[in-house]
Amino acid sequence: MFHSVLEALDKKFHFARAKAHCDIPCGIYDPITAQIAALTVVRMMDLMNGLADSEEKGKAEYHNSISRYITVKEEHAEKAKHEVRVIWGDYIKPEHVEKYPDLHNLVNKIMKLGSKVRQTADRQAGLDFVEAINQFAEIFWATKGIATKRAKAPYAPNLELVYPVL
Amino acid sequence: MFHSVLEALDKKFHFARAKAHCDIPCGIYDPITAQIAALTVVRMMDLMNGLADSEEKGKAEYHNSISRYITVKEEHAEKAKHEVRVIWGDYIKPEHVEKYPDLHNLVNKIMKLGSKVRQTADRQAGLDFVEAINQFAEIFWATKGIATKRAKAPYAPNLELVYPVL
Amino acid sequence: MFHSVLEALDKKFHFARAKAHCDIPCGIYDPITAQIAALTVVRMMDLMNGLADSEEKGKAEYHNSISRYITVKEEHAEKAKHEVRVIWGDYIKPEHVEKYPDLHNLVNKIMKLGSKVRQTADRQAGLDFVEAINQFAEIFWATKGIATKRAKAPYAPNLELVYPVL
Amino acid sequence: MFHSVLEALDKKFHFARAKAHCDIPCGIYDPITAQIAALTVVRMMDLMNGLADSEEKGKAEYHNSISRYITVKEEHAEKAKHEVRVIWGDYIKPEHVEKYPDLHNLVNKIMKLGSKVRQTADRQAGLDFVEAINQFAEIFWATKGIATKRAKAPYAPNLELVYPVL
Amino acid sequence: MFHSVLEALDKKFHFARAKAHCDIPCGIYDPITAQIAALTVVRMMDLMNGLADSEEKGKAEYHNSISRYITVKEEHAEKAKHEVRVIWGDYIKPEHVEKYPDLHNLVNKIMKLGSKVRQTADRQAGLDFVEAINQFAEIFWATKGIATKRAKAPYAPNLELVYPVL
Amino acid sequence: MFHSVLEALDKKFHFARAKAHCDIPCGIYDPITAQIAALTVVRMMDLMNGLADSEEKGKAEYHNSISRYITVKEEHAEKAKHEVRVIWGDYIKPEHVEKYPDLHNLVNKIMKLGSKVRQTADRQAGLDFVEAINQFAEIFWATKGIATKRAKAPYAPNLELVYPVL
Repeated sequence: MFHSVLEALDKKFHFARAKAHCDIPCGIYDPITAQIAALTVVRMMDLMNGLADSEEKGKAEYHNSISRYITVKEEHAEKAKHEVRVIWGDYIKPEHVEKYPDLHNLVNKIMKLGSKVRQTADRQAGLDFVEAINQFAEIFWATKGIATKRAKAPYAPNLELVYPVL
Repeated sequence: MFHSVLEALDKKFHFARAKAHCDIPCGIYDPITAQIAALTVVRMMDLMNGLADSEEKGKAEYHNSISRYITVKEEHAEKAKHEVRVIWGDYIKPEHVEKYPDLHNLVNKIMKLGSKVRQTADRQAGLDFVEAINQFAEIFWATKGIATKRAKAPYAPNLELVYPVL
Repeated sequence: MFHSVLEALDKKFHFARAKAHCDIPCGIYDPITAQIAALTVVRMMDLMNGLADSEEKGKAEYHNSISRYITVKEEHAEKAKHEVRVIWGDYIKPEHVEKYPDLHNLVNKIMKLGSKVRQTADRQAGLDFVEAINQFAEIFWATKGIATKRAKAPYAPNLELVYPVL
Repeated sequence: MFHSVLEALDKKFHFARAKAHCDIPCGIYDPITAQIAALTVVRMMDLMNGLADSEEKGKAEYHNSISRYITVKEEHAEKAKHEVRVIWGDYIKPEHVEKYPDLHNLVNKIMKLGSKVRQTADRQAGLDFVEAINQFAEIFWATKGIATKRAKAPYAPNLELVYPVL
Repeated sequence: MFHSVLEALDKKFHFARAKAHCDIPCGIYDPITAQIAALTVVRMMDLMNGLADSEEKGKAEYHNSISRYITVKEEHAEKAKHEVRVIWGDYIKPEHVEKYPDLHNLVNKIMKLGSKVRQTADRQAGLDFVEAINQFAEIFWATKGIATKRAKAPYAPNLELVYPVL
Repeated sequence: MFHSVLEALDKKFHFARAKAHCDIPCGIYDPITAQIAALTVVRMMDLMNGLADSEEKGKAEYHNSISRYITVKEEHAEKAKHEVRVIWGDYIKPEHVEKYPDLHNLVNKIMKLGSKVRQTADRQAGLDFVEAINQFAEIFWATKGIATKRAKAPYAPNLELVYPVL
């Protein structure tokens, strides 16, 4: 019944469509957003734990700081989960799942870790969250035929992130 | 290092924890939100398609209506995807996946349909979206030992939705 | 001055318009969203009060949990208020107010209770909030000629909610 | 069961509580936000209608402009409704309703006008929306014992707004 | 390559364009929104500091109140920053900067104060924030040739705000 | 009056504070988010312009696509502006402005370009937006003593972005 705009798009943007069946479709996916968000979660945990050991408990200033760290941690954990879900839902195609049969489980694990880091200030959970998203990033870049490396992030907590070699 | 608040919660809210490993954890999950959102997507498609056949094209009023339908469609497709992702990430546990081994694929399919209904006004895609989420709802209620029925929604487009028998 | 798209809509969607003068107009209103949100408010109060009695005060983990409960409580109280406001502003017509002359007061009361449950962790206020929205739901379904029943919600705190009989 | 923080607040902020039973409670309510938002709705209608008469229909640039006007109109209509709802739900007390018995109807009318200006580009509806909120502002300032005046807004469409005399 | 809708707009809305190079362009800018938001920041600090001196620390109710004050403080500080950024980015033109050569520094200072009031409950920082935005408002109204006055805001903390003389 | 939590933070996180006076303060700033957002703006313009030349004008599908491109363009232009504003307001210190005296003007220019790309589908404006943010990124990394390179982004429209050498 409808004239297919998507067909016209297919002709114009064939290469992009071949590489990405996405939402717009726009083809701009980059796991770095999720990786930075996960790193921020660990940073907030460090600030929370450092603050909890101090003497300032029970004061307006203490509550002000701890509440802000928790809120930022919440937002970035959610952001990381959302970004991974978008790539998984929009970019990942059946052939990718065939090649990386554990991909669904990895994404589900990222969701669960993303909830765990919201529920606690447990740094190990934060490190696991970063690492799981790093693994997702490695698979993502591999599906695009782009090599990756690991390098320390240029900001605290300076954990290793997976970067594409451009 | 930290006294475990979660352990204390476990003792207080043992039953809830046994039934739901969730984000807060709060245990209030209900796929009806996603189902109503998916139904709204179909409703907006119907309004868009009805409008497109009219004579009013190219006027401010036409653009006003079609833009609003598209925006509402976008928001509800995204909302449905988000709600399903939360239940899948927070409530669904490995034993559920063992019992319903196609669950990961179903959720991934819902994400892809949720993107498709954003990209088009194709009613069939909308119907598929509603049905996939209905299937997800059936599995969800089954994991809680609650029977379900199908009944027509009490608002247009009056599609069948899965409801728990309470 | 403008060709009326609404008139064309009127002809196409006469039944829906007759039953609902709404924002899009789309006709999909369902108080269940507000009811679940109000129930979540009570659930958060229970978690807050349970936590406050524990020994874990003053630690990062305690603040993490209590802050998250409060935030979720805030969001769901606001969500419930918003949903009721939309139905009241868009769906409710003068003839409904004639038939239920206390409706404006009930909605105003829901707004005030929605603010009260944000200001405190007082469970009774939460119960009053749920009950007021239940009463609103009963009136809503009555205006559509759909019978209702009361049943326990299938998740903690398992309060009675008003459901349409479909 | 709980030590009442609100009681302590009552003692500290008695005057504010006497004048406003509000959400925080903070006492900072100002209808000017709703008034500016309603004015913006009319401004967007003017831009939409001006554009619709031009020759540029059907081009990317035309769609870009008209879509943006519609979105801004949507957002500001919603914002105006939200601000009025907050003042009505949090600040307005039973004694105000006794003194201004038509207040509930006025607020309900504002909600309905706020939906109508989203549904159309009909300038008269926009003017009615501004005027209804002006009337709400007059009542609001009267309850606080502050005189008001009407003056032209210092930006297009330069409609008269109600301002407190400070 | 594109027919310029902006040119057509220029002809129709010449006066507005001459007075405001804005985002839509719509010409409705008003620093009062940022001023009220900054005032709210000080109000929240007052509530936080009043609460911190009370006996109720460590209880659910205390956390409920302090968390809410902090959240509202965060939101309004951010809102004030955003509103100032929009006027600075969209309305302010090079000739304004020539006439008020310290304008960029003032805006940058507002951003820094807006962050400082989020980081602390220090009332002086809040007062500085209000005053810096007042100065911005004075410049803004001066560029439009509209005189200003200072008057006490009609709500606590009743600080002086800059108002246009209409 | 208040015990300074910030001082305690200073001792614990001295290095981070020395390098970044930020909002939390957290020290995680990365212009890549703004750069990807600006790139997305150009991508949407390309999709809009490609679509406008097609035959599908005036249909529901056409409106669906063009509306979505415009919305995504709006959101990403705003996101890029917001990210740059945060770095400029929270991270940039007076000594940076001394060393890069045109920095305020560059940021103001980015704000104006960010509004221009919202107002039009003019690709050149999009390219200017990307380039201005690239220049901002070069200054940012220089203040941290980290070298940069330029490389083509690994997704359409494959423009050159500034990357830190890690």
